[in-house]
This record gives sequence, C-alpha cells and structure tokens, in this order.
Amino acid sequence: MNILVLNGPNLNLLGKREPEIYGTESLSDIAQLLKEKYPDHHIECKQSNAEAELITWIGNAVSTYDGIIINPAALTHTSLGLYDALKAISPKVPAIEVHLSNTHQREEIRHKSLTAAACIGQIMGFRGYGYVLAMDALIRHLQSDS
Amino acid sequence: MNILVLNGPNLNLLGKREPEIYGTESLSDIAQLLKEKYPDHHIECKQSNAEAELITWIGNAVSTYDGIIINPAALTHTSLGLYDALKAISPKVPAIEVHLSNTHQREEIRHKSLTAAACIGQIMGFRGYGYVLAMDALIRHLQSDS
Amino acid sequence: MNILVLNGPNLNLLGKREPEIYGTESLSDIAQLLKEKYPDHHIECKQSNAEAELITWIGNAVSTYDGIIINPAALTHTSLGLYDALKAISPKVPAIEVHLSNTHQREEIRHKSLTAAACIGQIMGFRGYGYVLAMDALIRHLQSDS
Amino acid sequence: MNILVLNGPNLNLLGKREPEIYGTESLSDIAQLLKEKYPDHHIECKQSNAEAELITWIGNAVSTYDGIIINPAALTHTSLGLYDALKAISPKVPAIEVHLSNTHQREEIRHKSLTAAACIGQIMGFRGYGYVLAMDALIRHLQSDS
Amino acid sequence: MNILVLNGPNLNLLGKREPEIYGTESLSDIAQLLKEKYPDHHIECKQSNAEAELITWIGNAVSTYDGIIINPAALTHTSLGLYDALKAISPKVPAIEVHLSNTHQREEIRHKSLTAAACIGQIMGFRGYGYVLAMDALIRHLQSDS
Amino acid sequence: MNILVLNGPNLNLLGKREPEIYGTESLSDIAQLLKEKYPDHHIECKQSNAEAELITWIGNAVSTYDGIIINPAALTHTSLGLYDALKAISPKVPAIEVHLSNTHQREEIRHKSLTAAACIGQIMGFRGYGYVLAMDALIRHLQSDS
Amino acid sequence: MNILVLNGPNLNLLGKREPEIYGTESLSDIAQLLKEKYPDHHIECKQSNAEAELITWIGNAVSTYDGIIINPAALTHTSLGLYDALKAISPKVPAIEVHLSNTHQREEIRHKSLTAAACIGQIMGFRGYGYVLAMDALIRHLQSDS
Amino acid sequence: MNILVLNGPNLNLLGKREPEIYGTESLSDIAQLLKEKYPDHHIECKQSNAEAELITWIGNAVSTYDGIIINPAALTHTSLGLYDALKAISPKVPAIEVHLSNTHQREEIRHKSLTAAACIGQIMGFRGYGYVLAMDALIRHLQSDS
Amino acid sequence: MNILVLNGPNLNLLGKREPEIYGTESLSDIAQLLKEKYPDHHIECKQSNAEAELITWIGNAVSTYDGIIINPAALTHTSLGLYDALKAISPKVPAIEVHLSNTHQREEIRHKSLTAAACIGQIMGFRGYGYVLAMDALIRHLQSDS
Amino acid sequence: MNILVLNGPNLNLLGKREPEIYGTESLSDIAQLLKEKYPDHHIECKQSNAEAELITWIGNAVSTYDGIIINPAALTHTSLGLYDALKAISPKVPAIEVHLSNTHQREEIRHKSLTAAACIGQIMGFRGYGYVLAMDALIRHLQSDS
Amino acid sequence: MNILVLNGPNLNLLGKREPEIYGTESLSDIAQLLKEKYPDHHIECKQSNAEAELITWIGNAVSTYDGIIINPAALTHTSLGLYDALKAISPKVPAIEVHLSNTHQREEIRHKSLTAAACIGQIMGFRGYGYVLAMDALIRHLQSDS
Amino acid sequence: MNILVLNGPNLNLLGKREPEIYGTESLSDIAQLLKEKYPDHHIECKQSNAEAELITWIGNAVSTYDGIIINPAALTHTSLGLYDALKAISPKVPAIEVHLSNTHQREEIRHKSLTAAACIGQIMGFRGYGYVLAMDALIRHLQSDS
Repeated sequence: MNILVLNGPNLNLLGKREPEIYGTESLSDIAQLLKEKYPDHHIECKQSNAEAELITWIGNAVSTYDGIIINPAALTHTSLGLYDALKAISPKVPAIEVHLSNTHQREEIRHKSLTAAACIGQIMGFRGYGYVLAMDALIRHLQSDS
Repeated sequence: MNILVLNGPNLNLLGKREPEIYGTESLSDIAQLLKEKYPDHHIECKQSNAEAELITWIGNAVSTYDGIIINPAALTHTSLGLYDALKAISPKVPAIEVHLSNTHQREEIRHKSLTAAACIGQIMGFRGYGYVLAMDALIRHLQSDS
Repeated sequence: MNILVLNGPNLNLLGKREPEIYGTESLSDIAQLLKEKYPDHHIECKQSNAEAELITWIGNAVSTYDGIIINPAALTHTSLGLYDALKAISPKVPAIEVHLSNTHQREEIRHKSLTAAACIGQIMGFRGYGYVLAMDALIRHLQSDS
Repeated sequence: MNILVLNGPNLNLLGKREPEIYGTESLSDIAQLLKEKYPDHHIECKQSNAEAELITWIGNAVSTYDGIIINPAALTHTSLGLYDALKAISPKVPAIEVHLSNTHQREEIRHKSLTAAACIGQIMGFRGYGYVLAMDALIRHLQSDS
Repeated sequence: MNILVLNGPNLNLLGKREPEIYGTESLSDIAQLLKEKYPDHHIECKQSNAEAELITWIGNAVSTYDGIIINPAALTHTSLGLYDALKAISPKVPAIEVHLSNTHQREEIRHKSLTAAACIGQIMGFRGYGYVLAMDALIRHLQSDS
Repeated sequence: MNILVLNGPNLNLLGKREPEIYGTESLSDIAQLLKEKYPDHHIECKQSNAEAELITWIGNAVSTYDGIIINPAALTHTSLGLYDALKAISPKVPAIEVHLSNTHQREEIRHKSLTAAACIGQIMGFRGYGYVLAMDALIRHLQSDS
Repeated sequence: MNILVLNGPNLNLLGKREPEIYGTESLSDIAQLLKEKYPDHHIECKQSNAEAELITWIGNAVSTYDGIIINPAALTHTSLGLYDALKAISPKVPAIEVHLSNTHQREEIRHKSLTAAACIGQIMGFRGYGYVLAMDALIRHLQSDS
Repeated sequence: MNILVLNGPNLNLLGKREPEIYGTESLSDIAQLLKEKYPDHHIECKQSNAEAELITWIGNAVSTYDGIIINPAALTHTSLGLYDALKAISPKVPAIEVHLSNTHQREEIRHKSLTAAACIGQIMGFRGYGYVLAMDALIRHLQSDS
Repeated sequence: MNILVLNGPNLNLLGKREPEIYGTESLSDIAQLLKEKYPDHHIECKQSNAEAELITWIGNAVSTYDGIIINPAALTHTSLGLYDALKAISPKVPAIEVHLSNTHQREEIRHKSLTAAACIGQIMGFRGYGYVLAMDALIRHLQSDS
Repeated sequence: MNILVLNGPNLNLLGKREPEIYGTESLSDIAQLLKEKYPDHHIECKQSNAEAELITWIGNAVSTYDGIIINPAALTHTSLGLYDALKAISPKVPAIEVHLSNTHQREEIRHKSLTAAACIGQIMGFRGYGYVLAMDALIRHLQSDS
Repeated sequence: MNILVLNGPNLNLLGKREPEIYGTESLSDIAQLLKEKYPDHHIECKQSNAEAELITWIGNAVSTYDGIIINPAALTHTSLGLYDALKAISPKVPAIEVHLSNTHQREEIRHKSLTAAACIGQIMGFRGYGYVLAMDALIRHLQSDS
Repeated sequence: MNILVLNGPNLNLLGKREPEIYGTESLSDIAQLLKEKYPDHHIECKQSNAEAELITWIGNAVSTYDGIIINPAALTHTSLGLYDALKAISPKVPAIEVHLSNTHQREEIRHKSLTAAACIGQIMGFRGYGYVLAMDALIRHLQSDS
C-alpha cells in the first residue's frame, strides 16, 4: 500500500525542540522506524510549516495514496482549511491523526481538535511510536475495507 | 473594467469535492461562465490554498484592478490577515465576498465571517452563480461610484 | 412567475431612516425597480412591522407564489417564528434573504442570522440593488429546479 | 370547567408543516379530539401567529377561564412578554405548556423554555395527544385546588 | 408640547398584575397624573401588547410629536425592532425609557436593555411616578435643545 | 403490557423530603396509584440511588419490558451514561421522562435535561400524577406503534 | 429632610473631563442647582475618588441622613463593597443611583450596574439634571413611606 | 506483564448497542482478541456500569497490575473521580484511554475528555482494534521504562 | 452526640495518594484523631467510592445522627445528587463540608462546589486537621441550636 | 505568637448590618472572644473599608506578625491587589481566609474567591466562631512548621 | 520636561516580593536609574496602594506634568476608575503603561488590560528597564507632538 | 550582535495602508532607522505574508541570530504555530513582540496575543519607534545574560 505521512509546522525541529514534551527522536528517525516496521508498504514522509502545502498534498492524495497519517501540530487546533481538505478526500483516502504528546495535559487551546473529526481516528501521547500504531491501524482499516 | 476573482483553500478541488455541498461545477467552469456573461470586462481568476498568496494578491491589486470578488473558503472564519488585507486596499479596490454554500446551514464555526466586514457586501448559497451575481453587483457599485 | 417580496419592521421608513446606513431609496422605489427589471414576472411587494403578519403571509404563500424574497430587518436576529415559517414552506416555496446594509459592519447582535438557515441563500450590502440580485438568483433557482 | 387552549405561531399549518416533526393531525383534529375526550367541559381552541394576540387572550382569561393549555411554539424560547402574561394571571388561572415534538431532540435554541417557568407543568413529545394529557392534568389540578 | 407616552405588553393589566412588583396604580391613573402635573402640554397615552403597533406609532411620531416616553416592558430586553424604530426617529423625536420596577433587582434577563441605547435616558424603580420624572426630563431636554 | 418505572437518587425519601417541592406522596403511594389506574398492565416500580444500577436495569429491559417511565432526579442534568443507556435500547424499549416538580422554576442547573433527548417525551410539574400521565402516554405510544 | 449626595471617582473633574460625554457643569454647579431647587431640605454634597470613603460615608448615614443620591461613577460596574454598603443601610436609608451619561450607549462594561440592585431606582442620561430628578423621586419616596 | 483492561457504563451492551457507532464486536470478542494477540501477558478484562467500582479497581491496581487500558465510556466526559483515581496511581501504574468511536464526530459534550489528562495517551476511532493498539503501546511504554 | 463522618471517592487511598496535595495521614489516622479529641461523642467514620452509597447514608442519617461532616472529594464539583441528599435532611441534620487541600489552588473545575450550598459551612486546606475543626464547629452549632 | 486579624469593607457595621446573614456579634465581640480563647497569643484586630489599607497592613506584616486571619468581605471576589499582597508575604506569613456567611448560598458573584488561593486555607459559614477555628488552625500550622 | 511616574498596589514591596517574577530592584533603584538616564528632565516617582490616590494624582497632573508613566499593577486588570482618570486627561497628558513582568505568561486574569486603552502604548516584560524604555518613548512622543 | 527583525502579513504595505492606524513610515524606513541607531550590530529585516515562512525563519534562527524582534501582525491573535516556533528556540534565541498600534484601542480580537507568551516582552503603540525600543531592550537583555 501507498501511505502518505504528513507533518505540520515546527515538526522539522523534532528532536531538538522542547524534548521534555516531544522526545528526542527526529522526524527522519520516525520515518526510518516506519519503513523498517512496514517494509511491504510504500511510505512517503513529508513535513511542511505551511498549511497551504499540507492542504495541497492532501488534495492531490486521491489516486496516489491509499491512506494518510497526519500530525497537524499547531494547525490541529486552528485550521478549518485542513479539516476541509481531509473531508474533501474522505472516505476515499482515510486519514488518522497522530500527536506526539498527550495534548490533554497541555494548554487548554490544545484540548480541542478541529481536524480529528475529518479523520477515522486519533492517537496521542506515544511520541514517535504513535506513528507506528497509526500505520498498524491504517493498514488494518484499509484491508478490512477492501 | 479589471476584476480580480480570488478563491481560497480547497477550491481547486471544486466539482470533485463533496458535490452535495459545493455543486459539480469546477472553478474553470465558473471562470468560463463569468467571461461569457461579462465579455466587456477583463476578469482574472486565481486560486490558492495559501492565505499568504491571497494576501499578497490583494495587496498588489491597487492600481491593477478595479474590484475584487473573493471566496475565502475556510479562511473566511479564521483569517484576520485576510481581513487586514481587504481593509488595507479599501475603499480604493472594493471587494465582495462570495460563498458557494449557505454557510448558515452548516457547522457553527461557519456562521461567523471575519472577512465580510472588510467587503462591501456578501452573497452566499447560489453555487457558482453567486460569482455572476457578485460581478453584477461589483460593476454596478463601481459605476455608481465614478 | 409569481414572486412575493416581504419586508420587515421599520422598512416602511426606508429612504427617510438613517440614510447613511440604509440609503435614500424608498421601498416603493425598490418595488418599481424590480418591476421594471423583471417585467415578465408577477411581483408582489409587502411590508409589515409585525412578525405575525410576515409569518401569515409566508404560511399562505404555498400554492400562490413560486418563491419569496425576504428582508426580515431586525427580526433576522431574533425571530425563531419566522425561521419556522420559512422552514414550513421549504423547499416548495424557496426563499432568499436580503439585507440593505452589510450587517457584519454593524453591532454584534446583527452578525448572526436566525432566519438565513431556512433560505437557499443570502445577499447583503448592496442597498436596494440587492433585491434585483435576489430576483435574478431566485428566478434562476426556480428555472433550474423545474 | 372553562378551558382555553392557545396555540402560537405557525401552528395553523399543523398537519401540513414538516410532518416528520409535528405529525399529520391538524389543529382542528386536536380540538375535535379534546372535545370528544372531555365532553363535560367547555373548551375554546385558538391559534394566533401574533405574540400580542396571545398575550391579550391570556390577560383577558381571568374571570372567563379556569385554566389554560398553551403551546407557544417558537415563542417558547424568545418571548418574555408571554412569560409575563402567564405570570400575571397566575395562580388564578393556571397554565400548562405543551409541545408536539420533544424539543430536546432539536436545535439547541429549543432546549430552553422561557415560558414554562410561569406554568404549573410542561408536557412534550406526544404530538396531538399531549393536549389530552394536559387537559387531564389541568382538570385534576383545578379539582384538587378547589 | 406634544408628548407620546407608549406602554408595552401586559401594561394594560397594571394595577391588577403582581402589585408587589408593579404597584396598584392603573395606566389610566398614570395618564391622569401626568395630565394634572403637566396641564400646558398635550399628552397622548397609548398601550399595546404588539411590538409592531409600538414600532408603527414610533415611526409615525415624526412631525406629530415632540418627544416620546416609552415603557417597553418585556420588549425592553428582546426587541431589536423597537431599538431600530427609536433610532430611526432620533434625534428628531427624543425618547426616554421608563420602568415601573427596578429591573436590576429581578431576573438576569431583565438586567440588560436593548432599547435604552436608542433613548436619551432611562428612569426605573419609581412606579408610576417615574413617568412624571420622565416628563420633567423630556420637557427640559426639548426646551434646552430649542 | 410490561412497564418498568424507574426512580433515581433520593426519591426513596419522597414524601418526607422538601414536601413544598416534591409533595407528600411516597414512591409506594405512586406505585399503588399506577397499579390501580392501570390494572391490565404489569408495572414494576424500582428506585435506586445508583446511576449504575439504573443503567443496568435499562440495559436489561430489552426483551423483558415494553416501555420505561423514568424519573432520573438529579441524574437528569449530569448523567451522560443514563442518556447512553436509554439510547442503547431505543426505539425498541421507548422511555418517557417524568419530573415531580417543574424544574424550570428551580436552579438553573435543572433547566437542561441530558436524558430527555433519549426519551420520546417529557412530563413535569404534576407531582405523582405525572407518572399516571406518562403511563397513559406510554401505553398509547406502544399501541399506536404495534 | 437630610439628603446625602455622593459622587464617585473622577467626578471632581466634572465640567473639565470629556465634556461631550459628561457635560460642562461642575459638581458644585450641580450642588448649587440642587440647593436652589430644594431650599427646604438640607443637602450635603460629597465627592471621593476612594471606594472606602464612599463606603464609610454610607455606613455612617444611618441616623444622620434620610436618604442618599449616589453617582458611583466607574465603581458602579466593579464595586461589590459599595453594593454591600448600600444594602447594609437599606431600607432605613433609601438610595437612588444617578448617572450623568446614558451608560447603555457606551462600552459594554458600563451596561451592567452592580450597585443599582441595592437602590430603590436608577436615573441616567440627563447630565446634572438627573440629580434634580433623583431629589424629586427621593423626597416623594420618603414622604410616601412616612 | 499483568494488564488490567477496564470498561465503563453500557459497554456490557457492546455488539448489540447502536452498531453503526460502536461496531458489532462484543466485549468478550475484544478480550479474546487481546489474549490471542498477546499470549505472553496476563490480561484481565472487566466491565462495570459503576463509576465507584472502576475507581476501586483502579485504586487496587497498584502492586497487582503493571498497566491499565481504560475505556471510561460516558464517564470520560463527566467523572472527576475517575481522573483522580488514575492520577492517584500514576506514574506507578500507567494507563491508556481507548474509545471505540471517534468522539470528535459526535455530540459536543464528547469532544472533551476529563480523564485523558491522567493517562499517558489516548487512542480513538478504531473500534475493538483500538484495544490491541493500546496493548501494543502500553507494553512498549512499560518496557522502555524498565 | 452522634456524628457521621463521610468521605468520598479515592479517599480510601489517603496517605498513599499524591501526598504533596493530600498529606501522609490515612483516613483511619484521622478517625483516630477525631475520637481522641472528642471522646464524649459517638463518631462514625465511613468512606465510599460510590455517590449512591453516600446518598443512602445521608438519607438514612435522620433520627440516627445529630450532624454530618462530609468530604465529598471529586463529587464536590459534579454531584447534584449529593447536594439533593444533604438538602433533603437539612436543617434536621446539619452538615459541614471539609476538604484536605485548598481547592482554590488547584484546577479550575475544583473552584466551584455544588454541595457546599447544602451545608452550614465549609473548611478547606488544613489536611486532616480540618476534620477536627469541623467537629468543633459542628458541636458548637448543635449546642447553640438546642 | 503574634497574629494579625484583618477585616474588610463594611465589617465595621457587623452586628447591625443584615443580621440574618451576618449574625448579631460585633467585630469587637469577636476580638474579645479571640483574646479570651487564646490568652497566650498576641492578637491584633483591625478593620478597614479600604483595599489599600489592607494591602499596606499585609505588606508590613512580615517581621511583625507570625500569621494572618483575613476576612476580605466584598474584596474577596474582586481584589487582585489583595491576592498579590497575600502572595507577596507567603509563605513567610501564612494567611487563612474567613467568611461569616456561607457564600455558596448567596449571589453567584460570591461563589468565587480571588484571594483564597493566596491563603493556606478557607473557613466559612460559622459566623464569628469561624475566627476561633481559623485561630486554632493557624496556630497549629505555625507550630507544625517550626 | 516634567514626568510623573506612578506605581500601583504592592509595588512598594518591589525587590523583596516574589523576585523570580518581579526582579530584585526596588522602586527607588528604578527611580534612581531613571534620573541618571534622563538628567535633563524632572521626574517624580510615586507609589500608592490606593486606587483613589492614583486617580487623584492623575486628575491633578494636567498643567503640572507633561506626561505619565504608569504601572498600575493589579489595578491594570480591575480598575475602570483608573481608565477613566487616564482618559480624562488625555491627550493633554499622554500616558504609557509599564509592567515589570510579561503578564501574558501569568494567570489568565492578567492577560487583559483595562487601563492600556487609555494610554498611548504599553511596554512589558523588561523588569525595571521597562521604565527607561517608557521614558524614552514618552519624551519622543512629546517632542514629536510639539 | 546578530538581530533578526521579522514582520508579518500586510506589513509590506506599511506607510500606504491605513496611515491613521499604522503611520506613514514604510518598513524600509524602519529598517534604515534601526541600522542608523544601532550601527554596531548586524540587523536583518524580513517581511512575509506567510505564517510558514516566519515559522521557518524562526526555526532556523538558532546558531545564526542572537535575538529576534517580531511584529506578527494579524498572526499575533491566531497563530499557535508561531507561538510554538518562538517557544522552540527559547530561551536560546530570545524574542520581543512589537506592535505599531496600541491593539487595546482596536477590535476585541486584537486584545489577546497568542504569541507574546513565547517572548520575553512586548512593546506596542509607538509606531516605528517601537522597533528601536525593542532593539534597546533586546541588546540589554542579551548583554545582561552573558
């Protein structure tokens, strides 16, 4: 299967940025981990600080990708556009939302997700391993659908 | 007259995305329709998923365009920057806000427009034909002003 | 076609009342304009300060009128009864909401419309010309439906 | 006993309006049902789209009626004047509020009743049969009081 | 001078309705009192349960009356239409808002006045004598203006 | 028919607890009344202070009972679990919510019912007689369904 | 009679401060006006910028003054202590709240009065003449009480 | 390892209750699945409709269990006591919150979790498979800790 | 005198649970302390994680106990049922609310007590010694009443 | 030990002011009671209507007093300055907040304390005896600290 | 130029009070620093715990001072009277608001300034050096005005 | 030192856009001013309409710049991503937030800053000169740190 893994603003700094919240793995560590764990699937990992680029990648995912794993980072709580993009391709290209930290333990503005309602599910609090769990869940979802 | 028609995030997917809400016309169908209806005017249709690009186009409109028709899509409800941009060029370059759907029939977050207050008026609920109505209103506004 | 044009409280004062917000046209000027622009249609223009009379007119519109253009004025923001009336006859008799001013530029209580969700669309900010645009949109809607 | 049964805005359309919510009985069907069920009482059924008319009828009820059954429809949620009217004649002329639908299953604006606090009780969700239940409750209340 | 004294819903019941809140004077007692205190002025006292009738009377006041004293009763807190009507004739026909009771000592919904902002001032808590005070204030305002 | 009558926290104290609000009848008085009024039906009256026990009884009602009358008492306003339980068995086992007092005349926290939306209707303010009305409504609902 | 007239923060600047809102009369002009209008009464006019001093004066008013006229200025909207003080001496020493401006036409924070509920009534919008009206109302209240 | 899997109110009905939301698996299907997938661990699955029982099980988990997987169902959104219980044993006995449905797609009251902040992470939207993912995450967490 | 000391959810863990908030004393330490300090009174100390059990104990307290000391723990902020129970036996069996911690220094949800309004007073922040203070206050209250 | 007992606005009126809420003891009765109960400690009782004076006394308490008992009265709910003052001297000079009445039974504005979070604990509802309890708690706190 | 530097409640404790928030400089250190940095200007530094005294100083500043630097401390967030005072002398005597700490990093109640809107600008987060920056800004403002 | 000066959406229009709010200086005027005032430091001035570009520049600032001056313009009030970016590099690269206008005097949406809490301080209301003040504050902060 073809899986698109999207990462939002500031996640390029992962591993260097506030490690007590986000852990010490970098995004490429996570990409590496995913590819090792799921060698039979094609996994494309991308990051952008730009809401627009994420929206474009999502809009283009139809007919290229079977599913999406997305960590919208700060955009989770503010981007209606990202919600619209995920909604636009669903249920053809199902998405799963991942967060490195447990956002319920942080500022109140992070307790509400605008984007999660356009995804099939949400996984949070397991640092980089959350992507592995999301991969597991996504493959299972895609297989049970077909 | 020179009219700039701007379209916000995800509108590139128009015609393919949730047709029960947004209809089956594509953006280029709408552009085509506008040009046929108003052959005596120069009409430039643009779309961007990026708030920043829309802001830049608006900022540059002074001295190039006589008026703007804008469908800010999801940014309608979240972008103070777009409001500021429209305000910055007003009343020199008047704008009209258009929405394909009747946002009052959708999620509560779509009931409030941040950008409409920087426009001369707002038209919603008529799918692609709303752009034709906006064109009509804009031309009339520009003619009555001069 | 048979079109009913309804106007709510205080619109009998139009042209005399706060002209910087509502313009200098009177309601009969607007009725005249509509009839000139759409000579092939029967247009009935009515005004009432009474929510009840508007509700009654809407309830009676089925089987008499093909569509409604309504400017509920202050009732836009407070009348659940008007919403219920428009809902009761929809989609048989579709309605379009019109406002003379851009309510987004006025007091916060005018930013939210209770009645618009029972209409197919909303047009605001173009003074009396908004009725012409609404007429255009309504005819097109009725024609595309049949 | 002399019982006044009042019905608010749009209830004249009952039976024709949104039958999946309000049922297929008309108001006169309900009046007929009440009279059959309670042949020993004088029952007067009235409907008005006008808050003012309802207020006047309530104000005049003292010395003419022993009790009131009222379905204020949309005014339930917005009319402080109706609350004041019911309060003004209470406890001399006790009232019971009836709703055809279960308003808790509908829009949030319908979850709160302004008028119910001026009544002795409230019955909702049983379509036209709710009036029969209210009649039963009202007679019992009046008899236990005397 | 020509003064119009308007009274809103349920005030026809004055003297009979909840006397511990509203006192034992009737509206005609108050009208009588006003005429005795101000024999040199023409004073017209009217009451209506209907928002629409009050709006119409206010709209017609221009060129007939020099000023208005209004007790909008329950409409104080809910009628945007009444606010619009008073605003439409201001400052040509200035208005003063009167309340029999001190609304700050009652339910929270009565703490906020929608209509007072369209009046020159507000007087509350002095039962029927508040109309006398309002008359005094209105005459003085009209004389200092001319 | 088999009817389950459920009563929530503190209703075991009925008749002894704040009689000016809840009346002087005990729960067994009410059970007795119901059985006398409806001798042809099997009526089971239960009370529990425990949300969990009520949930369990509701969950077990399918295939044992035809309908439920429930007075959730304080849980009305706080128990999402009770709402879920009623929803889980609906529409197979329809429920009616009853309150002894008119909750709209009490503290604001009692104005909103979480559980009513999972019932077919709600009856409040008639003390113990409300159960009789609910029984009447429930039987009629069950008969009209079959 | 002995009347205490209290004025809150910044009213010492009256006549010089924002005359378009507060008028050009000074506090001593108002005191002078009151004494001329009511020569038969002893009137003591005081001003303080300190909530504490106003509270102390109010607390000491019992047995010295028959009534109080108070313009709490900014403290109207924030001082629970002033409310408590007025409540503590009421109804022995009744108070009337006065505002020079119509606070409903100003910032939202000025729409709600904390202190008015501890007074018998409130008068606003008549500049310095509001004190004369309050004096009239207070004397009448005191006379009708005795 | 010793893992305690807790399930809250109404989950005993799983498989029978609203299958379009919760799926057709029963709780014992899920328990079976977990034991098959993780044969090397001791897994204890329990369900209770009672907040108190869940609290007691959590309080007793210290020294018996290595970790907890909990689906608090409706209690997720209302039980501060469950939050306190999970907090009391943390970080000694870490917990993961699981939901069968994607609560962000349901009623607003289900968008906020009170209990998640006392867990290390949250997984939602994957029906029964969410427990498998939680098991995977929990084991990994426990192993990385030791 | 006969005093009932009730403790709510998770207080069985006292001494072991988050000692920086709740201290290191266990509930039986507190019970011991109370009995030593007040040897002349019969003191019964109970704890339950179940709201229902607490409600039942309170309901049964009439005619057995002279007063209640209650620490409702997490139920303080969410249980209307507990409020109703305390209200039902008051003022016959007066209650005092105790909290080990100063809840004003903790999460916002703990700043508001639902149950305190049904008690004669509240004591918080003194760890286990708060029960001693409550005992002192309760005895004094009972003695001054008789 | 040296204890400072501070009392806020209007407490000078204690014994005379609304005795059904505050009791009939005066502040000097309370001071007398404290001195009799705690003859071994130096107790200084002060009252001020001025927030500023209270703030100054608190600021000066370091190095003079061992602890503070404070009844901030109305300032409890509005004074951030008092909170800052108590915070500034804590934990060197610990404070306990006392209220004569149970503020949870009064207006909503009195349900939230701004100042309590800067104290070690809070005692309310026991009239003047609350100061005795606070004294007891304070001495114990100071002794257990040293 | 003549500059008045005002400091609000608790700032007399500066240097001793919570140094991790407010720093270790005292107010006289800051006054000293200002005078050294701006030897050509007359600078008067004052502090008061009393809102009233600050209001009086501000009211008297006209004709004595050219500008004001004010740190209202806790009053920033609660004093409408201070706002009114600054507004009363503006723009004759312009003011700049200074805060030692970055209030956006503290409790939510400190995120909103009532007084800043009556100042020309605001500077926060630079401890005592903020006064130097304010001095610089004020002098420049005064010079560019003249 | 190396200082990065960042400017957000629409600031490219500075000098031309709404000069009554933002002044007549352009961004390059401000850059010029900064370089003249601080010739010993390397100052890089950048502007972008794109949140993403600003985030990227901030993320890259570590190891290149010593500090940041940022005017996030409209993004101040809506961009959690910008807050995260500033937080990610802090305290290594400290930032100061600058606004040309006093946002407290403008629309309510501009009263709250999301980004300021990630900066060491905030300066607003001094037009272009605010950047000079920020430069002064930043250099001093950096020097006192080293």
